[in-house]
Amino acid sequence: MKRFNIVGKDIPRADGRAKVTGTAIYTDDIKLPGMLYGRILRSPLAHARILHIDTKKAKALPGVKCVITGEDTPKIKYGNWRLFPNTQDEYPLAVDKVRFIGDEVAAVAAVDRDTAEEALDLIRIEYEELPAVFDTDAALKKGAPLIHEASPGNISLDRKISYGDIKKGFAESDYIREDVFTVHAVSHAYLEPCSTVAQCDLDGRITLWTSTQVPYIVQCLLASTLGMRENDIRVIKPYVGGGFGGKMEMRPWEFCAAFMAKKTGRPVKFTLTREEELATGRRRHPMKIYSKVGFKKDGTLVAKDLKIHLDGGAYNSMGPTATFLSGNFGAMLYRIPNYRYLGQHIYTNKPPAGAMRGFGAPQSLFAAETQMNMAAEELGIDPIDLRIKNAMVTGDKIPDVATISSCGFIESLKEVAKMSNWKRKRRTLRTGRGIGVGCYSFISGGVFNWFNTQYPFSAAEVRAFADGTVHLLTMASDIGQGSDTTLKQILAEELGLKMEDIRITAADTAMTPQADLGSWGSRVTLMAGNATLEAAKKIKEVLFGAISARYNLNVIYDMECKDGRIYAKGRPDRGMSFGEAVALVQKANRGKPLVARGHYTPRGKGLVTPAFSFGAQVAEVEVDRETGLVEVKKMWTAHDCGTVINPTGVEGQLEGSIHMGLGYALSEELVTKEGKTLNTTFLDYKIPSALDMPPGESICIETYEPEGPMGAKEAGEGLVSPTAPAIAEAVCHATGYRCKDLPITPEKILKGLRKK
Amino acid sequence: MKRFNIVGKDIPRADGRAKVTGTAIYTDDIKLPGMLYGRILRSPLAHARILHIDTKKAKALPGVKCVITGEDTPKIKYGNWRLFPNTQDEYPLAVDKVRFIGDEVAAVAAVDRDTAEEALDLIRIEYEELPAVFDTDAALKKGAPLIHEASPGNISLDRKISYGDIKKGFAESDYIREDVFTVHAVSHAYLEPCSTVAQCDLDGRITLWTSTQVPYIVQCLLASTLGMRENDIRVIKPYVGGGFGGKMEMRPWEFCAAFMAKKTGRPVKFTLTREEELATGRRRHPMKIYSKVGFKKDGTLVAKDLKIHLDGGAYNSMGPTATFLSGNFGAMLYRIPNYRYLGQHIYTNKPPAGAMRGFGAPQSLFAAETQMNMAAEELGIDPIDLRIKNAMVTGDKIPDVATISSCGFIESLKEVAKMSNWKRKRRTLRTGRGIGVGCYSFISGGVFNWFNTQYPFSAAEVRAFADGTVHLLTMASDIGQGSDTTLKQILAEELGLKMEDIRITAADTAMTPQADLGSWGSRVTLMAGNATLEAAKKIKEVLFGAISARYNLNVIYDMECKDGRIYAKGRPDRGMSFGEAVALVQKANRGKPLVARGHYTPRGKGLVTPAFSFGAQVAEVEVDRETGLVEVKKMWTAHDCGTVINPTGVEGQLEGSIHMGLGYALSEELVTKEGKTLNTTFLDYKIPSALDMPPGESICIETYEPEGPMGAKEAGEGLVSPTAPAIAEAVCHATGYRCKDLPITPEKILKGLRKK
Repeated sequence: MKRFNIVGKDIPRADGRAKVTGTAIYTDDIKLPGMLYGRILRSPLAHARILHIDTKKAKALPGVKCVITGEDTPKIKYGNWRLFPNTQDEYPLAVDKVRFIGDEVAAVAAVDRDTAEEALDLIRIEYEELPAVFDTDAALKKGAPLIHEASPGNISLDRKISYGDIKKGFAESDYIREDVFTVHAVSHAYLEPCSTVAQCDLDGRITLWTSTQVPYIVQCLLASTLGMRENDIRVIKPYVGGGFGGKMEMRPWEFCAAFMAKKTGRPVKFTLTREEELATGRRRHPMKIYSKVGFKKDGTLVAKDLKIHLDGGAYNSMGPTATFLSGNFGAMLYRIPNYRYLGQHIYTNKPPAGAMRGFGAPQSLFAAETQMNMAAEELGIDPIDLRIKNAMVTGDKIPDVATISSCGFIESLKEVAKMSNWKRKRRTLRTGRGIGVGCYSFISGGVFNWFNTQYPFSAAEVRAFADGTVHLLTMASDIGQGSDTTLKQILAEELGLKMEDIRITAADTAMTPQADLGSWGSRVTLMAGNATLEAAKKIKEVLFGAISARYNLNVIYDMECKDGRIYAKGRPDRGMSFGEAVALVQKANRGKPLVARGHYTPRGKGLVTPAFSFGAQVAEVEVDRETGLVEVKKMWTAHDCGTVINPTGVEGQLEGSIHMGLGYALSEELVTKEGKTLNTTFLDYKIPSALDMPPGESICIETYEPEGPMGAKEAGEGLVSPTAPAIAEAVCHATGYRCKDLPITPEKILKGLRKK
Repeated sequence: MKRFNIVGKDIPRADGRAKVTGTAIYTDDIKLPGMLYGRILRSPLAHARILHIDTKKAKALPGVKCVITGEDTPKIKYGNWRLFPNTQDEYPLAVDKVRFIGDEVAAVAAVDRDTAEEALDLIRIEYEELPAVFDTDAALKKGAPLIHEASPGNISLDRKISYGDIKKGFAESDYIREDVFTVHAVSHAYLEPCSTVAQCDLDGRITLWTSTQVPYIVQCLLASTLGMRENDIRVIKPYVGGGFGGKMEMRPWEFCAAFMAKKTGRPVKFTLTREEELATGRRRHPMKIYSKVGFKKDGTLVAKDLKIHLDGGAYNSMGPTATFLSGNFGAMLYRIPNYRYLGQHIYTNKPPAGAMRGFGAPQSLFAAETQMNMAAEELGIDPIDLRIKNAMVTGDKIPDVATISSCGFIESLKEVAKMSNWKRKRRTLRTGRGIGVGCYSFISGGVFNWFNTQYPFSAAEVRAFADGTVHLLTMASDIGQGSDTTLKQILAEELGLKMEDIRITAADTAMTPQADLGSWGSRVTLMAGNATLEAAKKIKEVLFGAISARYNLNVIYDMECKDGRIYAKGRPDRGMSFGEAVALVQKANRGKPLVARGHYTPRGKGLVTPAFSFGAQVAEVEVDRETGLVEVKKMWTAHDCGTVINPTGVEGQLEGSIHMGLGYALSEELVTKEGKTLNTTFLDYKIPSALDMPPGESICIETYEPEGPMGAKEAGEGLVSPTAPAIAEAVCHATGYRCKDLPITPEKILKGLRKK
């Protein structure tokens, strides 16, 4: 394997010191002269027609500078699935109807936050309440209230995947089982609540600082909803305190800030409260998962028939993608010759679900991996052995969908078994103690272009200077995952420079090259990494040429960039410093600076992703049979993310994933009653604390992904999925109680044990 | 002449509304969290050795965060003439010696301005006072105190120009006259006092917002004086309230702000007081001008021998350039077959003189044009006729120095004579009324590369978008002269777009393309204009190609960009909108954005400038023979600035020039006594008020400058020169008093009249 100098090293995060010293500027830290403070009025009803809105009193309140409702706006629908305009089902502010408790109805901008808040109370709205539905079964019932006119039956869309012969597959199966799994809504719970500041200049152009994963998408959708031209809007991402999929759309407050900044001529800021975030924010899709699998006696997987009802809430949001990906993840990990998937995205009168770390995988894989564990039990085969028997390997294909170009899955299974002392523990753990396994595969960014961008999926510009520094410009968004550091490492590695030689400007739609689709689906390392690498390679070629000419080198010479020097390989005297080489090129170009651009758009990689990651995880738990409390004693993880660019970064992602997976498995759930979210504080919404975090061991199975930059692929999003099925299996191993309905609460365990 | 759509139109200034509405952010408007306020301690002595500095008490003052002296700094000399390192004679803070009253000795940064000011008083400095010199004659005297060790005789450098045979020239002359002229220091008196904010990030990189004409020069010199790499420093020019040459160097407070920001980790701001500006700021060079001219009887100019002593003050500043240009301007306007020039730049213990609007021309041309008027009188030839007889025309050359590629001088003289009713008024005006003429030629930027940049002199990047907009990025600096508007007009014209289709990002050394040498010497319209035009032409070619392919057009077809559309000339149906064409190109490039760069470096245009402007001005005055007060009744101006890009802009430049010329002629002078500037407020320093401004008429002689963008060249800097000689001649015409020593004060007039 190639030896790297900077890639693979524990490089401190570029944003680390700014964050710990408090100098990092987040959106809410921005204060502009004359700035107004905005607040949003939300629907108190789950489903209602808006008959009349009276804003007179609110407008008359001293200090209030602007009050708007849907009627004041251009009333243009939006949504991320621009390629299919009929999926764009949301207005920035409600028009005619509200569809969930929290739906945005009006907005106020005032000289301070309290005044804005007070003005909200003065807006009088006359509603005609409509019957509402709160779960997919009710929504699908004949005669159920219709949430969107354009979607009869409340099914907003479906997605199908099918290959092999499903009937024949089950006919050939020796063992078939059917299960229904249910999973519920959880919150991203990012540390930084959403915040936006908009400023309108005297030419009518908007600058928007916003806590987002997708500056480019916000730019485009803001343009279309405001009826403006894309490039009259500039979106800048300041430091962002986490997103996890919750900040990957344009949001109503972004529209309202821009619209009111334009209207008032003053900057407008919105910052959401934690209560708003939990009560009305996007969330992970609740799903009802019907899964039927067929095996041969020897454990060979023959067929799988998967049907999923996604509870989308009131709008599509990122539901269409989740619908497709849930089916894709259902087909992953194992060779399934006969597969059929039907996913239906269903409207209900609840806050919309959206993208969340894993994007369909945690739900789909909870079902798939739990069912695998159940089958193993009944087939009398060790769960890890059963997996190894059916595991995907490099070169495997999902017909018409994807080719697995690197796969360390079997190695992951073997490593995690070894690390955890699996075989012995499965046999010998005392009652109340259990050990379980869960696995995952994940995408390294999406091939699908639902946003219908006309630009490359990612782009980078590298400017090289005679002082030995380079400037990397990219629209890619570091939202806390550390991608700026990763991109700098890739660039430093390729050009033989040090981290401090690189300045990075990122995520500013007016300054950085068009475009980057944002931070989601674990796309940044691979896509922005490839774009950066292409730009770096162009720079290198030019520098190599200049030095070849300077030293009259034979064209077959290999050249090298290393330790700040560029030279003929094996002839270090035939070379010069990086900066001197840049100066030489500049001279040759009569002064013109040395600049190159790189781009990346996945091609020839099927419909889903350029590369899949894989991994396996084992959890050991102790269950208190009296209280039902589960304590996770330890987690072992082995995973394949291709070349590890930054080991500390990967470790951080792994720990974060386990933390999120732990909450998903055991404690987190947004509890709703008739569409109203009940747990809207961190006291009521139960995120595991640092004390709940189990110790862990992990290992990276290094493969080399040919499509990834320097062999890298996804790290850290997929890992959120195996934790829940591993813990569920461990709980079952400890107690005999099999949970098919997340989260695995003490109540469910006690009820389950009592039933036995 | 080519018909334009946007060029030549009165386009409102891009910065106008921001300025009148108060939304324009100048450097001093910038407030950053934790920002410190800096103040500079200046020398109270004109010449002294620093024996000891005690900063203990200052450092101990609560609120003081940093105190530095020269000893704390890397002690690296700097100056704009990097090509000749021995001209770099200044330290950011004095080392060992101070050389003028106001020389920067120490700096303080504190939590507020008052504390910083108080701390200055607590710094104790022990000086050994040295003998000082305050004018060039004294400085040149044998045994005069030596100001810089490296410059014996206090001559820092000289510049020579010589062609023809000066001896032969005078031998062939029928009429020879010799005069000595003196001119004094005046202030730029820009509205915005200098201000700087520096911030140091956690990687040690500096961002500097500063009121400057030369972001790139500040970046480079800050890097060298701080011992940093150029690209670890980012210089951003906010709105600037005028410069006139006074902000075209790196200044001590820029260094101190950056140095102390690095040291304290907190942002540091310096804003100068008006008193500091007037007492210690750069100023126009006082000069002593020895001029000898020889004519034939018929008025043919045969020879000129010019010697100038420039009083540089304590440091070189931009003196070397002024020294060269004074000699160049002495050779301009008229055909002088035999010419010799010696310019000597002399140190004195006064605040340094620097660049100022006209850059040597106002002084040199006051002498030349006054002498021309004197010669006309004695030769019995009308002053305008004498000028026409000797005037330069298109195609004329100054050997080895310059070729005049466009020249509307004779037309200017004829027009101004006609407008002012010159012939009749010269004959018929009553005593006390007088009319006089003065002329000028000026450069459109410099060819000389004293800064020794490795980059093109100007650069532009144009990004074209499918929404029909473009983004222009350039390092060129609008300092109030309106260059952003001009560049947008050139770009809009070339691409057939509207002004509102263009976003401009300018003067940010990290974001805009390398490089631009700044706003001085009237270089921006021509140089940045040419760079912008080149980038636009590249964009056009690509769009033309795409449309040609789309419509299968014969390659000989001409194509046109107009009114937002691109099409085959004469076949408007074979075309599409600009945005559609960009989208087409993007498709053809698999999504890659359409971006082009343009550059400009003058080549094949001699040593001085790519293009010369010309003009003539007539002043009519009324002189009160009892008080000596001069009232300028009217000014007529005819000038050749090539294609007029923005008539309002040119008019504004003309009015500003007349205003500055008026002050130079009649009232402005920085009065010094033993090196101390006495008039340090706008009450004492007499700038003409709006009520002093005479009515005026003007006409642009439109030529087409082949080297300029769309035929344009310099407008508005050269025009500062003719006013003083025109007024001096008018005063003489009115009273018989001939002034050879600016300003023409009532005192001098009365004394002169009494002498008669």
